[in-house]
Order: sequence, then structure tokens, then C-alpha cells
Amino acid sequence: MKLFIAKSAGFCFGVKRAMDIALEAAKKFPKNLYTLGPLIHNPQAVEYLGELGVKVRERIEQIPEGTVIFRSHGVSLKDLKRAREKGLRIIDATCPIVKRAHFFAKFLHRHGYALLIVGDGHHPEVEAIRSYLNKRVEVVEDVRTIERLGHWEKLGIIAQTTQSFNLFKEIVAASLEKSKEMRVFNTICHATTIRQKEAVEIAKKVECMIVIGGYNSGNTQRLAAICKEIQPHTYHIETARELNLRWLVRVEKIGLTAGASTPSWIISEVEEEVRHKKAKVNKNL
Amino acid sequence: MKLFIAKSAGFCFGVKRAMDIALEAAKKFPKNLYTLGPLIHNPQAVEYLGELGVKVRERIEQIPEGTVIFRSHGVSLKDLKRAREKGLRIIDATCPIVKRAHFFAKFLHRHGYALLIVGDGHHPEVEAIRSYLNKRVEVVEDVRTIERLGHWEKLGIIAQTTQSFNLFKEIVAASLEKSKEMRVFNTICHATTIRQKEAVEIAKKVECMIVIGGYNSGNTQRLAAICKEIQPHTYHIETARELNLRWLVRVEKIGLTAGASTPSWIISEVEEEVRHKKAKVNKNL
Repeated sequence: MKLFIAKSAGFCFGVKRAMDIALEAAKKFPKNLYTLGPLIHNPQAVEYLGELGVKVRERIEQIPEGTVIFRSHGVSLKDLKRAREKGLRIIDATCPIVKRAHFFAKFLHRHGYALLIVGDGHHPEVEAIRSYLNKRVEVVEDVRTIERLGHWEKLGIIAQTTQSFNLFKEIVAASLEKSKEMRVFNTICHATTIRQKEAVEIAKKVECMIVIGGYNSGNTQRLAAICKEIQPHTYHIETARELNLRWLVRVEKIGLTAGASTPSWIISEVEEEVRHKKAKVNKNL
Repeated sequence: MKLFIAKSAGFCFGVKRAMDIALEAAKKFPKNLYTLGPLIHNPQAVEYLGELGVKVRERIEQIPEGTVIFRSHGVSLKDLKRAREKGLRIIDATCPIVKRAHFFAKFLHRHGYALLIVGDGHHPEVEAIRSYLNKRVEVVEDVRTIERLGHWEKLGIIAQTTQSFNLFKEIVAASLEKSKEMRVFNTICHATTIRQKEAVEIAKKVECMIVIGGYNSGNTQRLAAICKEIQPHTYHIETARELNLRWLVRVEKIGLTAGASTPSWIISEVEEEVRHKKAKVNKNL
């Protein structure tokens, strides 16, 4: 068996930073420490933080006092205001690359551009960006939506930082016809682009592709979708336990990658489990 | 036989305006009247102007005195300066839509953007635009060129006004990967886009497509190329005389369109000739 493991698999800079901030906070403020929503989209990592006393609350109202950590995806204006009003200690773990996207969204808005965000309207990152802008914002997730929209004099476009670059490109191309001036800031995180490209390269040469990451992780879902287009035998799992023995029968080349919020220990466990199960399969053949 | 004639065939606003200006000038300044290069890319129209006394000169040096008309494609900075130095009377027939492209090129340049012009580097319009900018300008005519170019912090993109919209779109999409910020002004003339779209629609439903216009007319060449992709039996002709009888054998649906610099009398002549030759073909069958 040959196992191809993506170099870019696992924690990106922003997630690693958020985890470090949370671990540091757990030491400094062991009492009444909360994150607003899960710190990162990985249940196992969040569970681990829970063991260290970091509690997850979905709404500011559910945090009576103490410290609140704003997660890597950023926070909405409403939540920021509420946390301040309540007098909570705020620790901001928003990814700097997400902050950059916020900056450009506000910049375009202030300069009179209608704004198009290429992304998932229900993703916390997009919800947060949107909350700082009061109007003329459209969130688009596919090219067909563009056709239905009107015509703009000045159109600004940014993307959710973990979006598929190809989708971004398609939407920018489709928007050209719809605007006289188009100003685009490429806010896609470089690490995301590299991760997607590497996944594509691996998927091309293997017979089975395994993508590891939270089921609630948008970037992992997209990673799996991109791989599946190339290698139909692509499986999205969260932990080593979900690895199915049957996937490994009669395949000699196996690929492994993981989303930006997947801890390295989960990737290692999956790697070990693949080797273990594959040995078992070979023995029974 | 069914003949489909494009509503958008023939003189665009800018060409009509330039012709009107030249005809008016021929009345007012019948002596020593020149155009710098052919007024429009149509030999028959230029010949007609010649009969009215409008002489064509390729260089300012060849104009001893009198009046010079700057044609619809615009004029280079060097020629403008030379004409002024010589004390010639200047009549500017540059198309306002071309002027708009000049404006945005200078605007982007002044604001620190590297500039990409989607167009033909040898076309007088592109040569004129380029002459006003001293550096950081690339003219690209195909997507592959983009791959070879470097990476930009701030990239501005405009197009030659009569370029193919699809090429513009492809180049914008390809440039996204190459820049952090991309600012695009859609400088393609709306009439050009409409003309191309209408030509495509007609080419789809006919068995033979005839595109009329100067062989030196870039927009007519592109119109013919776009039609040929859809209907291989596409023929680019300049006048009715070139219409080949054989093209009309066993075809019942014929399409007609013409470039932006094709006079309506040439289109009418071709239409008549098609009906005449087709009747002849039917008689002999």
C-alpha cells in the first residue's frame, strides 16, 4: 500500500492561533471561560477544550459573567455590542485573515460599492461580515444566483476566506457582465487554496481518498466535494473510528487530507488506523 | 429562402458620428482636409470620402497644412503633439466610448494599478491608449499570456472597446489568481456586445452566415470568427461582388450581419445580391 498524506492537512494558521489563545486563556482565567459558539468547527477539539474548562455558549445572553473568547470566524456587531454592554472580558481569537476580509468588505461599502460575498450565507464568518454592513450586500453560493440579480454601477466582490477558488473565479467572471466597474479583493486564504490544490493532486493519483474533519466544517465539506469530483471513492470522516474496512479492499494507493480545523492527533490516529485496517484486509485476502 | 438580417448590423454610434463629422468638415474645409489613417476601417466608405476631398495620410509629417481629422479609434499622444506643433486645425472624431476607455486607463494608472488591456496590441485604438501611459501596461490577446505574466498587488483591467466579451471575461477570471486586488472597468462598447450576441443567435439558426465589413476591421474579423465557431459556413466579405453563388446552393436559411464600420448601402447591396443569386441558384436546380 502507498499512503499519500497531504502536507497541508490540518490546522491552518488562524485555527492554530485560536487554539493557542484558548489554551492560554484556560490557564489565566480558569473560571467562567466561554467561547461564543464552538471555537473551531471540530467537535473533538472542542471536547478537549471543554475538559480544560472552556465552555461553549451559543448566545451572549447565556454567559452570565467572566470571559468570552470570540472564535476564529469572527463575531457579529450585535454580539460584540452585547458583550461590551454586559462588561464581559473579551478575548478576540478572530483569524487575522478573516479580519482582512472584514476590512475589505467595509472598505468597499464605504466607497459606494454594492457588495457581493462569495460564500455560504449561514456560515458564521459570512454572518459576521454581513452584520457590519447595513445594506446592498448579496451572498452568493453559485453562479446561477448572479443571473437573477440586477445590474450594478459599482460592484465590489470578496469571498469567504475558505471558499473554493474556482467558484470565486466563476462568480467574478459572471459578474463582469452585470457591472460597469468591478473591484475584487481576493480574500481567500492562501492556505485554503494550497490545501485544495494539493488535495486535487493527491485525489488524481489514488484509488481511495479520505478527508478528515468536522461534519460542521465548511472548508472540510468543500475539500471532500472537490476530491469527490475527481475520485468518486472519497470519504469524509470525523475520526478514525468511522474508517470502513471495505473502503480499503483492492486499493493500493490511498490519499489522506484534512480540513483547517482538524487537529493533528486526529490525522495521526486516522493514519494509524488506515495502516492497521489495510494490514487486516491484506491478511484476509 | 429565409434571410435573417441582424438589426445591429452596420454603423455604430461612434462610426456614424465620425462619418458625420468628416462629411461636415468636407463642406466647411474643402481644401487641405486630411484624416490621420483611414477614418474608419472600411475601404469603400474611405473611397467615398476621398471623392469628397478627404485625403488619407498615415503620418502627421505627410500633412503640410490645413485640417486633420482624428479618426474614431483615437490618436496617440505623439501625433497629437505633432499636429499641435505644426499648427494644423484639429477636428477630433474620436468615439466617445473610446475616450471613456482612455479615461479609465489613465485613472487606473494614476491610482497605482498595473494595467492590463485586453485587445490587439497593433490596433490603433490600443496603440493610442498605450501612448498616454508610460509604464506597467500589458496588452493581452489570449488567456495563455496571463499565465506567463507575474503577480500584481493592484491590477487594473480594461478592454479594447470592440473586443470579444467572452475573451475579456476569460482574461479577468484568469487574472484573479494573479492579483490581490483587481479593478475592472467594462469598457467594451455595448453596441459591440449586442452585435456579437445577435450574430450568435442568427448563426445558430442558419445554414450559411455572411459577415460584411472591411478586411482591416478588427471588430468585423472577430464577428466572423465568433459566427464561424457556431456555423462553419460563415463567410467574411467586403462587398456584394465577393458573394459566391456556391455558398447558396442547398441552403434555405441565410444570415447576414456586418461590422461597426460597414455602411448601410453596402449591406443593402449584399442583401439584394443574395436574393438575386439565390433566385438564380433555384432556377438552375
